[in-house]
Amino acid sequence: MTIDVNERARVLVEALPYIQRFHGQVVVVKLGGNAIEQRKEETLLDVVLLRYVGMLPVLVHGGGPEITALSRRLGLEAEFRNGLRVTDPATMEVVKMVLTGKVSPDLVATLNRLGGQAVGMSGEDGPTIIAEPLDPDLGLVGRVVQVNREPITALLQRGYVPVIASIGLGYDGLSYNINADTVAAEIAVALGAAKLILLTDVPGVLDGEGRVISQLDRAEARRLIDANHVSGGMIPKLEACLRSLEGVPQAHVIDGRQPHALLLELFTESGIGTMVTREGREE
Amino acid sequence: MTIDVNERARVLVEALPYIQRFHGQVVVVKLGGNAIEQRKEETLLDVVLLRYVGMLPVLVHGGGPEITALSRRLGLEAEFRNGLRVTDPATMEVVKMVLTGKVSPDLVATLNRLGGQAVGMSGEDGPTIIAEPLDPDLGLVGRVVQVNREPITALLQRGYVPVIASIGLGYDGLSYNINADTVAAEIAVALGAAKLILLTDVPGVLDGEGRVISQLDRAEARRLIDANHVSGGMIPKLEACLRSLEGVPQAHVIDGRQPHALLLELFTESGIGTMVTREGREE
Amino acid sequence: MTIDVNERARVLVEALPYIQRFHGQVVVVKLGGNAIEQRKEETLLDVVLLRYVGMLPVLVHGGGPEITALSRRLGLEAEFRNGLRVTDPATMEVVKMVLTGKVSPDLVATLNRLGGQAVGMSGEDGPTIIAEPLDPDLGLVGRVVQVNREPITALLQRGYVPVIASIGLGYDGLSYNINADTVAAEIAVALGAAKLILLTDVPGVLDGEGRVISQLDRAEARRLIDANHVSGGMIPKLEACLRSLEGVPQAHVIDGRQPHALLLELFTESGIGTMVTREGREE
Amino acid sequence: MTIDVNERARVLVEALPYIQRFHGQVVVVKLGGNAIEQRKEETLLDVVLLRYVGMLPVLVHGGGPEITALSRRLGLEAEFRNGLRVTDPATMEVVKMVLTGKVSPDLVATLNRLGGQAVGMSGEDGPTIIAEPLDPDLGLVGRVVQVNREPITALLQRGYVPVIASIGLGYDGLSYNINADTVAAEIAVALGAAKLILLTDVPGVLDGEGRVISQLDRAEARRLIDANHVSGGMIPKLEACLRSLEGVPQAHVIDGRQPHALLLELFTESGIGTMVTREGREE
Amino acid sequence: MTIDVNERARVLVEALPYIQRFHGQVVVVKLGGNAIEQRKEETLLDVVLLRYVGMLPVLVHGGGPEITALSRRLGLEAEFRNGLRVTDPATMEVVKMVLTGKVSPDLVATLNRLGGQAVGMSGEDGPTIIAEPLDPDLGLVGRVVQVNREPITALLQRGYVPVIASIGLGYDGLSYNINADTVAAEIAVALGAAKLILLTDVPGVLDGEGRVISQLDRAEARRLIDANHVSGGMIPKLEACLRSLEGVPQAHVIDGRQPHALLLELFTESGIGTMVTREGREE
Amino acid sequence: MTIDVNERARVLVEALPYIQRFHGQVVVVKLGGNAIEQRKEETLLDVVLLRYVGMLPVLVHGGGPEITALSRRLGLEAEFRNGLRVTDPATMEVVKMVLTGKVSPDLVATLNRLGGQAVGMSGEDGPTIIAEPLDPDLGLVGRVVQVNREPITALLQRGYVPVIASIGLGYDGLSYNINADTVAAEIAVALGAAKLILLTDVPGVLDGEGRVISQLDRAEARRLIDANHVSGGMIPKLEACLRSLEGVPQAHVIDGRQPHALLLELFTESGIGTMVTREGREE
Repeated sequence: MTIDVNERARVLVEALPYIQRFHGQVVVVKLGGNAIEQRKEETLLDVVLLRYVGMLPVLVHGGGPEITALSRRLGLEAEFRNGLRVTDPATMEVVKMVLTGKVSPDLVATLNRLGGQAVGMSGEDGPTIIAEPLDPDLGLVGRVVQVNREPITALLQRGYVPVIASIGLGYDGLSYNINADTVAAEIAVALGAAKLILLTDVPGVLDGEGRVISQLDRAEARRLIDANHVSGGMIPKLEACLRSLEGVPQAHVIDGRQPHALLLELFTESGIGTMVTREGREE
Repeated sequence: MTIDVNERARVLVEALPYIQRFHGQVVVVKLGGNAIEQRKEETLLDVVLLRYVGMLPVLVHGGGPEITALSRRLGLEAEFRNGLRVTDPATMEVVKMVLTGKVSPDLVATLNRLGGQAVGMSGEDGPTIIAEPLDPDLGLVGRVVQVNREPITALLQRGYVPVIASIGLGYDGLSYNINADTVAAEIAVALGAAKLILLTDVPGVLDGEGRVISQLDRAEARRLIDANHVSGGMIPKLEACLRSLEGVPQAHVIDGRQPHALLLELFTESGIGTMVTREGREE
Repeated sequence: MTIDVNERARVLVEALPYIQRFHGQVVVVKLGGNAIEQRKEETLLDVVLLRYVGMLPVLVHGGGPEITALSRRLGLEAEFRNGLRVTDPATMEVVKMVLTGKVSPDLVATLNRLGGQAVGMSGEDGPTIIAEPLDPDLGLVGRVVQVNREPITALLQRGYVPVIASIGLGYDGLSYNINADTVAAEIAVALGAAKLILLTDVPGVLDGEGRVISQLDRAEARRLIDANHVSGGMIPKLEACLRSLEGVPQAHVIDGRQPHALLLELFTESGIGTMVTREGREE
Repeated sequence: MTIDVNERARVLVEALPYIQRFHGQVVVVKLGGNAIEQRKEETLLDVVLLRYVGMLPVLVHGGGPEITALSRRLGLEAEFRNGLRVTDPATMEVVKMVLTGKVSPDLVATLNRLGGQAVGMSGEDGPTIIAEPLDPDLGLVGRVVQVNREPITALLQRGYVPVIASIGLGYDGLSYNINADTVAAEIAVALGAAKLILLTDVPGVLDGEGRVISQLDRAEARRLIDANHVSGGMIPKLEACLRSLEGVPQAHVIDGRQPHALLLELFTESGIGTMVTREGREE
Repeated sequence: MTIDVNERARVLVEALPYIQRFHGQVVVVKLGGNAIEQRKEETLLDVVLLRYVGMLPVLVHGGGPEITALSRRLGLEAEFRNGLRVTDPATMEVVKMVLTGKVSPDLVATLNRLGGQAVGMSGEDGPTIIAEPLDPDLGLVGRVVQVNREPITALLQRGYVPVIASIGLGYDGLSYNINADTVAAEIAVALGAAKLILLTDVPGVLDGEGRVISQLDRAEARRLIDANHVSGGMIPKLEACLRSLEGVPQAHVIDGRQPHALLLELFTESGIGTMVTREGREE
Repeated sequence: MTIDVNERARVLVEALPYIQRFHGQVVVVKLGGNAIEQRKEETLLDVVLLRYVGMLPVLVHGGGPEITALSRRLGLEAEFRNGLRVTDPATMEVVKMVLTGKVSPDLVATLNRLGGQAVGMSGEDGPTIIAEPLDPDLGLVGRVVQVNREPITALLQRGYVPVIASIGLGYDGLSYNINADTVAAEIAVALGAAKLILLTDVPGVLDGEGRVISQLDRAEARRLIDANHVSGGMIPKLEACLRSLEGVPQAHVIDGRQPHALLLELFTESGIGTMVTREGREE
C-alpha cells in the first residue's frame, strides 16, 4: 500500500505524544532470538530511531545459540540443568568470546552503520555488574549482586547507545555467565528506566487457550508462575519482569519476530505482546 | 483511511534519514498568513515535533492583517508605497503592540500548550536586530544592518523555540518595522541554518502557466525577478531566499494553507512548494 | 550648587557600606505612575546604577492609564469593581498589547539606551506566573498561584535586568490581568529578595494628619488596613508589602515623583517614604 | 559642608559613566609612600569601592622606608647607586621579610577589614615574575624578564584583590628585589590593564615652573626624561609609564597624599595628577 | 637480597626525575608474546604503577598464538604470506572473538584486579581505527588509514587505562585484522605520545654478532632494514618504530621476558633493549 | 651499596600498594626543627615525590629558632611561659616577618626548584585560620577557633602544595602566633586528612627506658600525658595528635633528622617513629 504524504504527516504527528512521553527516558531492551537474527536490521533501526527522537535505549543481549554452536565446534559438550547452561571455565571462555567478541561487536557495527552511535561493553567492564555463583552445580553461572550504573550513564550522557553483554564479574575475580533477561531487569532498575522490553520469539504471555494476555499485574503474573500456567521458557522472563517492577513502571514481553516490534510497542496506543505492571489494568 | 500499525512503523522508520540529516540543525521558519491563521495549530504542532526529534526551529513572524485591523480601529489610515506600510510613530506603536503584545504571545502560548517550550522575543531585545531606515519616505520602515545571534542561540541551547517579532532597533534608539521574510533570511544566515522556510498563502513560485516550479537556482531566481515573471508579492520572498543563500544551503517557499506543510517539506523526498538552491538541481 | 571633587569622593565612599550590604542581593521594584511617566529616565538610570554596583534589580510594571487610553480609543468601556478593572477577553487583549507590546519594550529600550542590559518578559513566558481567576465577576482578573523563578534567575545570572509585565497564565490556558504590586510581592518572595520597593505617586503611607509614617511593623500595617486609616489606593500596596514580608525582610512604599527616589532609599541611612518590616522599629 | 540627599544621588548618578567605562577592566595601582602610610585607610577604601563597582584592581607595592628601617635595626648598611638599593643576600632577606612578611600582610589585613577580599602574593609565587640581575654591581637587584599572568587572573576571577610584592624569581633560583613601579608597569601590560596608576608623594609631573603637567604623550615624556627636565625620582616613574603604554592606553602619576586620590582620578572628568598617553591630548 | 628501608627510600627518590619527566605523558605499549603470557602479571603491575605515578599508558595488543590455537580447534587452516595471516571472513570472526572476547577482557580483568582501572576497546569502537585492505590476496588484513583519538583520550581523561585490540573498521563496513605493532605506532602518533614501547620476546635489535644495539637513529634503522641485517620478524617492528618517530620522540624494542621490563626502561638512566630516535645519539 | 636495576624495579613495585592506598588523600605534615634545617632538601624532595605519586601533601610550619634569632638581633627580649613565647605586638611583627617573609618563601622556593608547585599562605590569608587569645598573659598567642578549608582545597585542586605559616587572624583584626603542631592538627581535621605527620627532632615518643613506642591508642596517649611520662616538649605534640584523631585515622610523631623520614613512614610496612591511632593496635 502506498501511503500518501498527508498520511505520512498524520502518522508523524500522531507519534508526538509518545515521543514527548518517553523523551529523555531510559528504555532497556533485551535482544534475543530472532530479534537479533532474522529481524536484526529492523530492530536496530528502531533503536536508532528511538535514540534520535530523544529516548535513551540500553541494549542487553545474551547469545545462547551461538554459544552452543561454537561449543560444539570446539568439542565441548553442552549440559543444561533446569534450562541453565552448566558453565565450566572452558565454556565460560566460549561465552565471553561469543558475547563480547562476536555478538556485541556485530550489534555495535550494525548500529553504527545505521547511524546510531553504539558502544559495546561487557558487564565486567567497570565493573558494571557484580555477580556471585547462582548454584555450585552450575559452575560459573551467576546471579547479579549489584549494578554499577555509572559506566552506563556516562555512555548515555555522551549520546551513545550502550550494548551490554550479560556477563558479570565476581568478587573472586572470575567471570560469570548470567541470564540476559535478569541482567536487563537489574539494569532497568538501576537506571530507573521507564520500560523494560524483552524481545522474544513468542507473541507474548499466552493464556490456557494460546491467546496473548495483553496485560498482567504483579499478582496475576505471580499466580501464573506458581500455577505453572506458563511454559518453562517464559518463567525466567516473567520473573525478570517482576523484578524490574521494583523500580520500573512497566515491563513488556513482545514478539521480536514481528517487524519493528519496538516501535509498535512504544508508538501505538494498544502496544503489542504482554505488558506487566505493578497494579494491574488501570495504567 | 485507517493506517494499520505496521504502516505506522514503516512511516516512522522512513522518516529516520530526514531526522538524522537535520538533527541539531537550525531551521528558520517564517510564519505568515494562513499558517498562523487557519492552520496555526497544525503548523505549531509540526514545530513541536521538529524540536522533539532534534531540530532547532526558529520562528519569525510579522502580522500585517492584524496591524491593519488595529490601525483601522484606532482611526489610523494605512498607507502603502511599493507594498510597504508607511510607518509613522503612531503606526509603529501599533506594530509593536500587535507583534510583541498579541501575535508573539499567542504563538508562544499555543506552542507551550502543545508541549513545546517557546519564548517570545522582539528583534529589539538584546538587541538582536540592528536596523536602519530603509527609505525616508517610509518613516520607521527598516532594513537589517546586523543580527546579534547570541540571544537566539542562548534560547536554543536551553531547549526553547524562539519566536521572533520582525522589529529592529535603530542606532537612533527608535524601533523599526521590518519585512518578516527579510528578518527570517538574515537570522538564517546569522545562525548558519540548514534551511529557510517561508510559509505563504500560495503553492510556491509559479511559472507562466501557473504551475509550481519545484526547484530554482540562484541565477534562475534572479532572472524571474528581473524579468518580472513573478507576482509582486513574491519578489520580496524570492529576494529573501537569495539573501539567505549567502549562508544557508536551501530556501523554500511553501504553502502554509496545506496541513502539516512543514513536515511534508522536511520529511519527504520530493518536498513541497519551491526550493531555491545555490547551484541548481544537482543538490 | 557645585560639588567639588573632594565632596564627590566622599559621597562615593559613604555609599560603600550600602553597596556592600546589597551586593548580589535581589531588589524587586514595582514601577508605576510617575516613576514611569515624568521620572522614567531618572528612575531607570538609578536601576542601571544599582546593577553596575552589583545589586540584582528586578522590575515589575502594570500600565493602567495606558490600558484605559487604548481601550477608550478602541471603544471598549472601562468598568471597575472595587478598584479592579473588569477584564473581558477583548480588554485582556488590550492589556497584553499595552503591557508586553508597549510599556515593557519602552522600559527595555530606555534601559538599554542608558547602558543597562534589560530583557522584557511577560509573566506568561516560561510560564513564570501561574494565575487563577480572582473573582468570576471580574472576568480575566487573576491572583498569583505560583511563581516559577527559574526564567528570572536565568536572566539575572546572565547579567540582565528583567522587566516583567504583570500578566499570568492560567491552568485553563488563558491570560490573566494581575495587580502589579501583588506580582512584585510574589516575585520578591520567590526570589528571596532583600527588598521590595513600590514606587508610587504619594510620599508614602500617611498618618491621620497627612504626615509620612517612616516605619511600620506588620501588626501596625494590618491595623491601619483594618481600621480604614489608609486611603483605598494604599490598601493593596500595604497588602503587597505584608505578603512580601513572608520572605523579604523589608518592603517600601516610596515616592516615584521624587528624582532618584530609588537611590535615596537604598543609599541613605534614613531612606525615604515608608518602610514596612516584620518586627517593627528595631531593624 | 553638608551634602543633602539629592546632591548625593546626583553624585552617584554622575559616577555611572565612569563605572560603566571601567566595568570589568583591570586597573593596576602601585602603592607607595604616603598612600600606604598616612593615607592607607582612605586609599584602600577606594580600592574596595573600585572592586565593588566592578573594576578589577591589582595592587603592587614596594616598601623602601621600612626596608631601610629594619636594615638599620639589624645593623646592615644601606647603600644606594643611582637611586637603587645595593642588595646583598642579607639585605635581600630583609627585603623579603619586610615586603611579604609585613607590608603585604598589613595591606591584605586592612583590605579584608574594610570588606574587600584580598590575597597577598610575592612575585616569586607561581612564579609570577621571572627576573634577571639588572647590574652585577647592584647584587640581587633585578629586572623583569617575564610576567606569568595566570596566578593573578586566577585570583581576579575568584573575586580577590591581588596584593603583589615587587620581588621576582631568577632562573638561578635566587630572589630579586625589583623596582615596584616597573613591576606594576609590567603586570599592567601582561594583564592588558585599562590603566596603570602610580601613587606617589608629589602632585604629578611638574613643568619647569613647578606646575603639574596634566597630560603628556609618549614623545613629550621621552623628551622630558632625555632633557633632564624632571627630577631624578620621577625618571623611573615616567619610564614605567612609557613601558606600560606598550599595552595599556593610559598611565597616571598621581598624588597619594590627597585623600581618595584614586577615586578622583577614576571618577572625575578632569582627573588629577599627570596622565601619560600614547598619542597625546586627543584621548 | 634484602633491601633496607633507607635503600628503598633512595630508590624511590631516584625515580622522581623520571616520574616528573613523563608526568601526564602518554606512553603507548604494545603487549605481545611472553609479556602477556609468562610475565603478564609483572607487566600489568608495571602498567598500574605507571598510571599511579601520573603517566598515561595506552595498551595495544594482538594475539597471534591464541588466534592460531582457536583456528586450529575449529578446523580452520592457518595460512601465512610474508608473515601475515591470510584472513578470510571465518578467520576474521575468530580474530575478533579471540582479541575482543578473550585477550582484551583478560588483560582488563587482570589490570582491574591489580588496582588499575582498565577499559577494553576494539579499534572498531567509535570507530577508533579506520582501515583499508592491505593486499587483496590477504583478505581482511588491513592497514591503518586514520586514527580517531577522541575515544582514547576520553578514557584517559576519566582515568582509565585503554586496552586496544588491533582491529580496524573499513569504509566497507568490514572488520580488518591489523598488525598490532603498526596499530600501536599509529596510535602513538595520533596521541602525541612521549614513547612507543614494543614488548617482544627478544632482547632488542641485535647487531651482526648477536649483541643488543642500544640506540639507533632513523637512518641507521632504515639501513638495517634495507640491508636485511635484521631478522624478518624484527622488520615490521622497526618499521613501526620509524613510523612512530613522525610524531613521537622515542620508540623502544624491549624484552618482555625480563621481569618489570617497562619499569626498567622508564625508570633507569640506561634503559633496556633498543631505543630508536629521530636524530641519533644526542638525545 | 649499589642497587641493581632489577632491585630498583622491585622496590618501585613494592611501593605500589602504599601509592594506591594514599592516592588522592590529604597528608598534613608539620615541618619543624632539623626537618627544615639540616634535612630540608631531603624532606622537601619527599614531599614532591608524594605529590607526584598522587597524594595531596599540605605543609605547616612554625619557625621558633629564626624568630628568636631575629628578635635578638632587633634587641627584643624573648620571654617564655610554659614553653610558649610571650608575644607582644613588636614580637608578633617579627613572627610574621620570619614566618611569612622568610621561612615560607624559602620552603616554597626550594619546593619549586625541586619541581613541586608550591604556594605559600599565612593562616591570615582568606582568612584560613580564625584565632582567639589563648591566655591574656601571653599577649598575641592564639588558639584555633575555626579553620576555613576552602583556600587550601582550592590550591590542592589546582595541583599546588600549600605551605602554611602558623598564624591566625583574630576577630579583633589582630594577628595571632599559634603553635604549629596545633595548627597542623586542626587543618588535618578540617581537610579530612588520611594522616597527620609531625616531623620532630626526636625518634618518636619514648617509653621510660628511652625506647620508641611504635604505636599508641588514644587512651594510652592520654595516660602518658596525665602521668607526666613524656617530656614537656612532647606534650603539645601528643595533644595535637589526640586532637587530630577526632577526624583523622592516624597521627605520627617521627624523626625529621632521619633522611627521607616521610617516605619511610608512608612507604614501608612498619613505618618509623610513633603512630597514634583511635582504637589501638588493631589497625
